[in-house]
Amino acid sequence: MRYLSVLGPAGTFTDMAADLYLQRTQKQLSKLYFSSITKSLLAVNNETISVAPVENLIDGFIGPTLDFLELHKAVVIDELIIPVNHCLASKHVALSKIKKVYVQFSTHQQCKNFLEDLAVLLIINTESNIISAEKASADPDSAAIIPIHAAETFGLKVLKESIQDFPNNKTRFIVVANKAVPELQPAVFYKTSLLIGVQDKPGSLRDILSAFADRKINMTSIMSRPTKGKLGQYHFFIDIEGHQLHESVQQALNSIKKHNSVKLLGSYPEALQ
Amino acid sequence: MRYLSVLGPAGTFTDMAADLYLQRTQKQLSKLYFSSITKSLLAVNNETISVAPVENLIDGFIGPTLDFLELHKAVVIDELIIPVNHCLASKHVALSKIKKVYVQFSTHQQCKNFLEDLAVLLIINTESNIISAEKASADPDSAAIIPIHAAETFGLKVLKESIQDFPNNKTRFIVVANKAVPELQPAVFYKTSLLIGVQDKPGSLRDILSAFADRKINMTSIMSRPTKGKLGQYHFFIDIEGHQLHESVQQALNSIKKHNSVKLLGSYPEALQ
Repeated sequence: MRYLSVLGPAGTFTDMAADLYLQRTQKQLSKLYFSSITKSLLAVNNETISVAPVENLIDGFIGPTLDFLELHKAVVIDELIIPVNHCLASKHVALSKIKKVYVQFSTHQQCKNFLEDLAVLLIINTESNIISAEKASADPDSAAIIPIHAAETFGLKVLKESIQDFPNNKTRFIVVANKAVPELQPAVFYKTSLLIGVQDKPGSLRDILSAFADRKINMTSIMSRPTKGKLGQYHFFIDIEGHQLHESVQQALNSIKKHNSVKLLGSYPEALQ
Repeated sequence: MRYLSVLGPAGTFTDMAADLYLQRTQKQLSKLYFSSITKSLLAVNNETISVAPVENLIDGFIGPTLDFLELHKAVVIDELIIPVNHCLASKHVALSKIKKVYVQFSTHQQCKNFLEDLAVLLIINTESNIISAEKASADPDSAAIIPIHAAETFGLKVLKESIQDFPNNKTRFIVVANKAVPELQPAVFYKTSLLIGVQDKPGSLRDILSAFADRKINMTSIMSRPTKGKLGQYHFFIDIEGHQLHESVQQALNSIKKHNSVKLLGSYPEALQ
């Protein structure tokens, strides 16, 4: 493995997650930056793995990542959790003098209350937090809503910290490879990610959850996604505690596979929150 | 009832849904336009009801609407389904001469493949489809990706139709009031919307689904949303077939309420797809 593909440019939350991953695993990989989550995931091959956001505490799942896991051969080999801390920052002006605020679309969603209270006339949506920081650096009378680490990178003065609507916001990232040999080490807590296409029949989802509950397997996450064919038809991204090599997990999956499609996305050590 | 609050400006998909609702119900209500979904829903009072998008076939649920239903006293009194058909439109140039494309963030997500194939240098994200149409009207060498009905409204020439990644995309809208007396008419198919806060215990969601499945109550929609407190904790927006005044529905809800919180969001006639 030589490369780690990441949503760029340098300084994004994904880039922070990538740095944490490299530091924790002591892997020597060169980072490759891409302009979208989908592009960074499509770069995965025999020499490249990718870090991508999968779920935010406030916004919920990240669509492009789930779509990629559904449509491509991919194995989740690790996960990371990063706190989200946004600030209002400016190079030029004091809080009371701001006339314009640059903010990325998702960041805007996460800081809605603050922005409404701020009552600035002009809010300009950008494509990335880094672009917001760049624009605010170059534009007098303006400020940007950006992650606090980006304010440092761009030399902007932090006018107000932790301005996201929910102070303890976090994002969960996954590390994706194109293949992996499942590895089971003792004294490690594992999680297993699954994509389950539920049979269109009353009670199907109940039966799937029973296959886990009956075997005392905890579900740590369930995200419903439309199948894109018909409103009201869903498949489910489900994370459970346990490893695909554990006997109880294998039994549950065999029972579910009798009536539903199961895509095994990978087993990996559980991240601490 | 005197007013119908809507995400504006005139010409949005929500505005189309509002017109369909007024036409179908023969109600005489004045439309009030708001700059965000949340603001239009907050306008609901004794004199005002609101139409808001709740779920898109491709993107999944619409966060601000679900958040509103969770946090405020609100009753869902009707639903509507509107097809989504985006086009590339321009006032000035032929397809081969376009240098710039204006596109709203969600529209961008829905037309990703087309935009990547188009390979235009400059893609400018806007806050609404109507702003995209206005900008493209005023800017030479540019085009906009907008709903086909907006191209007509703004006198833009449609260069390419149905450019969304999934051709049969649809959005489901709900009509929200601040109160309603549940009404049960014969020969009408009803749906009931619920918000269920699931007890944090293995098997809880399974037991909830069993309460419906055991009584042959079909679930037409399930959307998990983070509770914003802890990653991996969810509540569920669940739609079932049947009316809250039906005995089987009442039995199921009573059984679920023993261990979980239930917010009854309303019963209303099921929309045709």
